Amino acid sequence: MKLFGTAGIRLQYPMELDGALAYKLGLTVGSLGYGRDFFVVHDTRTTSQLLTYAFTAGVMASGGITRIVGVAPTPLAAYSARKYKGVGVSVTASHNPPDYNGFKFYDKEGYEFTRKEESEIEKNIWRELKPVDWHLVGKAYHERTVVEEYVEDLISFVGSSPGRGVKTFVIDCANGASYNVSPRIIRSLGGRPLTINCNPDGFFPFRTPEPRKDVLEEYANMFRGVSPSAIFAHDGDADRLAVIDPVDGFVKQDRILAFFAKKALEDKKGRVIVSIDTGRALDEVVEREGGVVERYVLGKTHERVKEVGASQVVMAGEPWKLIYTSWGPWVDGILQVAILTSALIREGVTRISKLLEKENIPDYPWDRRSYIISPPDIRENIYNSLIEEMKSLLGDPENITTIDGTRLEYADGSWVLIRKSGTEPKIRVYAEALSKEKLEEMLIKIEKKLVEIVNKMGGRVVEITYG
Amino acid sequence: MKLFGTAGIRLQYPMELDGALAYKLGLTVGSLGYGRDFFVVHDTRTTSQLLTYAFTAGVMASGGITRIVGVAPTPLAAYSARKYKGVGVSVTASHNPPDYNGFKFYDKEGYEFTRKEESEIEKNIWRELKPVDWHLVGKAYHERTVVEEYVEDLISFVGSSPGRGVKTFVIDCANGASYNVSPRIIRSLGGRPLTINCNPDGFFPFRTPEPRKDVLEEYANMFRGVSPSAIFAHDGDADRLAVIDPVDGFVKQDRILAFFAKKALEDKKGRVIVSIDTGRALDEVVEREGGVVERYVLGKTHERVKEVGASQVVMAGEPWKLIYTSWGPWVDGILQVAILTSALIREGVTRISKLLEKENIPDYPWDRRSYIISPPDIRENIYNSLIEEMKSLLGDPENITTIDGTRLEYADGSWVLIRKSGTEPKIRVYAEALSKEKLEEMLIKIEKKLVEIVNKMGGRVVEITYG
Amino acid sequence: MKLFGTAGIRLQYPMELDGALAYKLGLTVGSLGYGRDFFVVHDTRTTSQLLTYAFTAGVMASGGITRIVGVAPTPLAAYSARKYKGVGVSVTASHNPPDYNGFKFYDKEGYEFTRKEESEIEKNIWRELKPVDWHLVGKAYHERTVVEEYVEDLISFVGSSPGRGVKTFVIDCANGASYNVSPRIIRSLGGRPLTINCNPDGFFPFRTPEPRKDVLEEYANMFRGVSPSAIFAHDGDADRLAVIDPVDGFVKQDRILAFFAKKALEDKKGRVIVSIDTGRALDEVVEREGGVVERYVLGKTHERVKEVGASQVVMAGEPWKLIYTSWGPWVDGILQVAILTSALIREGVTRISKLLEKENIPDYPWDRRSYIISPPDIRENIYNSLIEEMKSLLGDPENITTIDGTRLEYADGSWVLIRKSGTEPKIRVYAEALSKEKLEEMLIKIEKKLVEIVNKMGGRVVEITYG
Amino acid sequence: MKLFGTAGIRLQYPMELDGALAYKLGLTVGSLGYGRDFFVVHDTRTTSQLLTYAFTAGVMASGGITRIVGVAPTPLAAYSARKYKGVGVSVTASHNPPDYNGFKFYDKEGYEFTRKEESEIEKNIWRELKPVDWHLVGKAYHERTVVEEYVEDLISFVGSSPGRGVKTFVIDCANGASYNVSPRIIRSLGGRPLTINCNPDGFFPFRTPEPRKDVLEEYANMFRGVSPSAIFAHDGDADRLAVIDPVDGFVKQDRILAFFAKKALEDKKGRVIVSIDTGRALDEVVEREGGVVERYVLGKTHERVKEVGASQVVMAGEPWKLIYTSWGPWVDGILQVAILTSALIREGVTRISKLLEKENIPDYPWDRRSYIISPPDIRENIYNSLIEEMKSLLGDPENITTIDGTRLEYADGSWVLIRKSGTEPKIRVYAEALSKEKLEEMLIKIEKKLVEIVNKMGGRVVEITYG
Repeated sequence: MKLFGTAGIRLQYPMELDGALAYKLGLTVGSLGYGRDFFVVHDTRTTSQLLTYAFTAGVMASGGITRIVGVAPTPLAAYSARKYKGVGVSVTASHNPPDYNGFKFYDKEGYEFTRKEESEIEKNIWRELKPVDWHLVGKAYHERTVVEEYVEDLISFVGSSPGRGVKTFVIDCANGASYNVSPRIIRSLGGRPLTINCNPDGFFPFRTPEPRKDVLEEYANMFRGVSPSAIFAHDGDADRLAVIDPVDGFVKQDRILAFFAKKALEDKKGRVIVSIDTGRALDEVVEREGGVVERYVLGKTHERVKEVGASQVVMAGEPWKLIYTSWGPWVDGILQVAILTSALIREGVTRISKLLEKENIPDYPWDRRSYIISPPDIRENIYNSLIEEMKSLLGDPENITTIDGTRLEYADGSWVLIRKSGTEPKIRVYAEALSKEKLEEMLIKIEKKLVEIVNKMGGRVVEITYG
Repeated sequence: MKLFGTAGIRLQYPMELDGALAYKLGLTVGSLGYGRDFFVVHDTRTTSQLLTYAFTAGVMASGGITRIVGVAPTPLAAYSARKYKGVGVSVTASHNPPDYNGFKFYDKEGYEFTRKEESEIEKNIWRELKPVDWHLVGKAYHERTVVEEYVEDLISFVGSSPGRGVKTFVIDCANGASYNVSPRIIRSLGGRPLTINCNPDGFFPFRTPEPRKDVLEEYANMFRGVSPSAIFAHDGDADRLAVIDPVDGFVKQDRILAFFAKKALEDKKGRVIVSIDTGRALDEVVEREGGVVERYVLGKTHERVKEVGASQVVMAGEPWKLIYTSWGPWVDGILQVAILTSALIREGVTRISKLLEKENIPDYPWDRRSYIISPPDIRENIYNSLIEEMKSLLGDPENITTIDGTRLEYADGSWVLIRKSGTEPKIRVYAEALSKEKLEEMLIKIEKKLVEIVNKMGGRVVEITYG
Repeated sequence: MKLFGTAGIRLQYPMELDGALAYKLGLTVGSLGYGRDFFVVHDTRTTSQLLTYAFTAGVMASGGITRIVGVAPTPLAAYSARKYKGVGVSVTASHNPPDYNGFKFYDKEGYEFTRKEESEIEKNIWRELKPVDWHLVGKAYHERTVVEEYVEDLISFVGSSPGRGVKTFVIDCANGASYNVSPRIIRSLGGRPLTINCNPDGFFPFRTPEPRKDVLEEYANMFRGVSPSAIFAHDGDADRLAVIDPVDGFVKQDRILAFFAKKALEDKKGRVIVSIDTGRALDEVVEREGGVVERYVLGKTHERVKEVGASQVVMAGEPWKLIYTSWGPWVDGILQVAILTSALIREGVTRISKLLEKENIPDYPWDRRSYIISPPDIRENIYNSLIEEMKSLLGDPENITTIDGTRLEYADGSWVLIRKSGTEPKIRVYAEALSKEKLEEMLIKIEKKLVEIVNKMGGRVVEITYG
Repeated sequence: MKLFGTAGIRLQYPMELDGALAYKLGLTVGSLGYGRDFFVVHDTRTTSQLLTYAFTAGVMASGGITRIVGVAPTPLAAYSARKYKGVGVSVTASHNPPDYNGFKFYDKEGYEFTRKEESEIEKNIWRELKPVDWHLVGKAYHERTVVEEYVEDLISFVGSSPGRGVKTFVIDCANGASYNVSPRIIRSLGGRPLTINCNPDGFFPFRTPEPRKDVLEEYANMFRGVSPSAIFAHDGDADRLAVIDPVDGFVKQDRILAFFAKKALEDKKGRVIVSIDTGRALDEVVEREGGVVERYVLGKTHERVKEVGASQVVMAGEPWKLIYTSWGPWVDGILQVAILTSALIREGVTRISKLLEKENIPDYPWDRRSYIISPPDIRENIYNSLIEEMKSLLGDPENITTIDGTRLEYADGSWVLIRKSGTEPKIRVYAEALSKEKLEEMLIKIEKKLVEIVNKMGGRVVEITYG
């Protein structure tokens, strides 16, 4: 069995992940020399305390010292690790269903563990490492003050400034780890939080912890009566944030990234690293502000930050994962709440859409389609053929990037990205254009060509997903 | 200064109540022999931890042992006191604004302290009782398991039973002490809680902790989209519960009392003690179910339960204060959540109004008016004159009760209660009738007569409040 | 591998017992229905916290709730289990070296798990029981008040009474779990404790946690200068107590048992259950006090108490294991400290030897010899032959008991017990007589005969141990 | 009433110091701007938890955050304050009887509060400072990891090195705050601790927490049998250490100071600040090692360190108060244990006297006498007359120091110090000489002259104390 997926460990309890494995994991991570002091936060899942205790026993068996922080958002694991030069651990399955759980690790500079470190753990966990001798065994402590420290540091990082009139913010914590942090941040910055699903509950009884557009968009109607400046929704461990405008609905992640890139570049010029699938709003904003965009493999932009060094990068991100390096080199959804709340209060605007407009963050038509092809083994050939046909299909691109799939950018500002999914047997097509018509036209052409190629190879498109 | 008001101590921080007074209070209550073991819960106010620590130091100075439970609803203080034969303490100002705080005390049988015990404390606190000698000093412990025990006991008391389909319940914890209890109760009983203001926050940033009709009635519109079976709203310490129907709005406290009286009498026949201002819905229901109604002084029905003995009483209550004796002799808003949730899931009805209809709980027109009269010293005479005129005004009553004001009940089912408020310089008139027209007529006649009497005595009606 | 030995689980860390096994043990014990609430105490070993956390994770995986009490003597596990109707667990290897650790279990009446329950666990632990589903997972709490409760209950059980003058007691806690309990008991009862090795230290740096006569007897010289009334020494988890007289040295366990039998019978008549190897001091005392002695298998007297029912038994015991049923059906070294301290203070005697004299507790010459025979497989035959020869060797016994080895009692008050050790390949001979000469004569005769038999069978006595 | 004495606050409970005063103290110290984060340790006294909770409530009322560390030695308050840039607080009455308690404060560099800061507190505490508003109130946390950090830092500061053979150290913690620290330090450095009075007990049942020579000297006899390398004895809060040689008995504080001065100067040259009453052993050692001695007011050497700056000073001290600046600018008895243990293990010597001999620490005859004179108001004149007569009495001194009393040093190496006690109505005479005879001669001459002067002034010597 493979432990690590695209974002740490996420497995089903108890079939794939149980206390026995958590113990082994603690022993393994504790034995590999990443640090002696561990800071463990966990989300609100019913299995999180169990896994924390078992993992802690494993760390002790390796000779390590664990500070169990208790329920706290994942960014706090990274924050603690950096502040106290230890290893940060978050016991969480992020936005997965309640029967899942998992682990994320952070090094003593606050970087999430890279693929290299993950594979080192993966390799050693099945080797049954030997515990240290009885006289070298570690200890466990329970300490919560780091939550206080994080909140105070974040508020002073953002800087509260008196706004004009009281503004309401709806915040949905997904019954997860941020319940005692994000609402408090909003209130401390001068906002008036209306909180929903902000009690800790590992059953996630009202909504899935995944911030899905269809689920969250209903909130715009529900809360229009209280005229919120924004509706925020976290996933279970608050590394992510969805933002909903009470009038216009769900705000695209691309625009959120562009907004934060602008804010970061206003303070300091430098590199902005984003995943291959992000759109041109970001490019325009970064160019305007005098920064440089670098695109990187989807799901691994944080590794690129570490490679380059956080001091060279002002912001990094991909949909749902935003790193603001002047705050820390980790993905942090609570930082997003803090900066957006503060901006909405400071700027005299009524709601988030108006803020993005005022900040001149473009909004272009964008879409994504995913194709499952049968038999699966022809996917590679189909992908290659499709790439070859692209020139005849849409003309000469101005720019081609192949770091993760093939991204073709055209002179009229439109672009297409064709990728093989890393987790599912799909070919994915992403596209953006300056008009809806053009976007539609591009996607239809590509789909037609794709189907043609599949048929030619004797295969069949089994399923198409939109968005 | 007077410490105790109509419901325990509630004073403004720090002008009226501070750490120094909390310490003295701990020393005094600890010295008066109510018990040696103290169980202290507190609400989410910013001053609650401070007052808990100071109070605990005072208890230690008296030789007592304190178990600090931490944030938990007031009913848990009573529950702990009874379960472990100690003194229960809740540090809370209930529904008061955030700059208030206070104390409620419970004896080892779970009864709230009576006026007798309160005046004993009041008398001794200014006497500066001497701490015990150094070798007799008490200790403090931090323990939360009693919260677990309360939740499990309550669920097994109510008994969960599989319902038909998932039902949604909106629950608003007022950012108070119930945040980790009531939502969990709903979910454990099979409901799907949509929680609002259920993160702990002593600033009460979205709404006042007082469950005011005008504030809460908006919820009916806000959440109609999710078709909840009921909308529940607690005050800050969850001894109270407001219930809102998503279609019909705020449910009158009289009908809630009648519903619980019915449930209690279905299990066991006995006495139902209610305050002087409750309406005829209750009388009808109790009579139907074979119970007996006793009316008592407003604000002190719990003392009457203690006098009579909880075993003789099946239910006691007044608006916002409901005691369900088979569960315990204390006011408990969480018990209300549990029983209503369970009933709504078990009975095949869509919402709370339908449940009350199905249970045949009447709904009669009711109103209340309050008159401030100047100069204040003529209030007594005016009250007496008005009572004298009542016969000529509305005819012969069938029944007169004078235990707290004068309540006159008429043959057509209507009734009037005239009272001098205990906390404000007001004369209050309560009335209920079978029709709105009749009710209006009664109130107009009384108001006219009252104004006439006031004028005759050379006074003036300064202010009239409705509802 | 076999988990359970003669007294719970005791294995070497980490070769035989590690966190992984502790987790499995928690899951197994939690799944077998002994109770849902667990109370876990642990001794001061360096591995005890680790094993407690791993075990607790296992209990949570089975759906159980664990109260982690922390460092506390083993008797507290039994006490908690009975008081709160749960399962008591002590993580300890009692008097073993610091690289060992283990587990003892108690049922909800306070009885140590019997061989039947142990074999049930043993059978199921290798079956890899399935954890409960995610929504049924248990929780862990940290709570220490039960230590307070134990101390207060024990003091009120013994009853403190003002003594004449201050008496000094030396108490050695073996750096173990009693460090914060036994000294406090002595002081609360009016004694003046001089504590040694009473800081918690899992390295046991000064002496082995085993209360060995040779180690402890030096204390008589060391502390004679402070004229203690007694010198007490616990093992690591305080189920045991060694008592040393400052003048006469080590007090025989037989006399301790006899003293406690006397005390128990003074309160209530009934059965006294002791192991097969105890001497006649006990018989004389019990007879005098109107009780009845029953002898039972060594190491399992507690099981016999459970069989018979604690209400039928006033005391049970064997060397190092004393159950005082009016206090509880578990072995408790702290109770011994309490009763002895209280008696020494109350009675106007200077030291423990004088107390035993005053209470008329006889002291007869006693000895024990152990023989290792090679080859091991002839031990059975040698044992049988020796038993056969006993009549010709020492004459007709008045009484023969064969419940565990063969015990022969003679008319002159002397007796012999011949046993095959259950844990080592030895034949053991125990004897007592009214005079040293007679004792010596008996032992020499038996040894001569034993050697003769061994030789005849072509074997060899490899080693003889005395005492 | 005056709060602060010669070493922080030390008052009788509850007459002079109770929870009410502790609350006020917390509020005052928290309001004066020394820092927002408080680290509170306390000793084992029965009143320490009470005072800690009340003080903490006061700090919260001032808006401060308190980390309650729990039972820990006073040096940990200073260590925490410096490490985390906060205010360190130790709730302790040091070596006073059990009915006393008190407070010591440390600033964010680890310096004990000076007379200036103390008088600022003293001045403000009776002014009844106003608590901050409800929304600015602070919080309290319970955290123990700083104890772990202190122990690890100290061990790595001293550096453990394998010794030759196991050496035994007797350590007496006075039932105080060091119980879980000093024994562990000895064991971690390779020693074998035999601990006495190392269980926490605020009754101090065996000996007074004051390390009195007469009480402790008996230990030499008691433990000679285990041939300890040294016998260590702390006071209640472990800022002090008494050292006893198992053969030669009590080691003079002067020699301890000289030993530490030597160790400090071996690492780095610099100033050594000592109180006016220390002897010539120190001067000789410091001169030999190339350092410079500065004498300062008794009881306030720590203030002089702060004035000069810790980087300029290698060691500072006075009897019972030793500051080792490369470790920290606070008085620390545990550091003394660590360095002495490490030296005794590393150097191949059998016991502490041999170590001092090997390190060439001189040992000169020394004595002290105190005179109470009646009427008290002539003390000043008598003191002045005596000083005037000194020249005619003992000849011309080589050197006179008048910073605290008058210290006269003579060419033959002898010296005399005449002081008016700061806490009692006494004149004190300290003297040292190279021979006992000379010392005796000096003291007799001075006493004769003193009596003569007193008589001449019409007064009377009421009491003479020796040593």
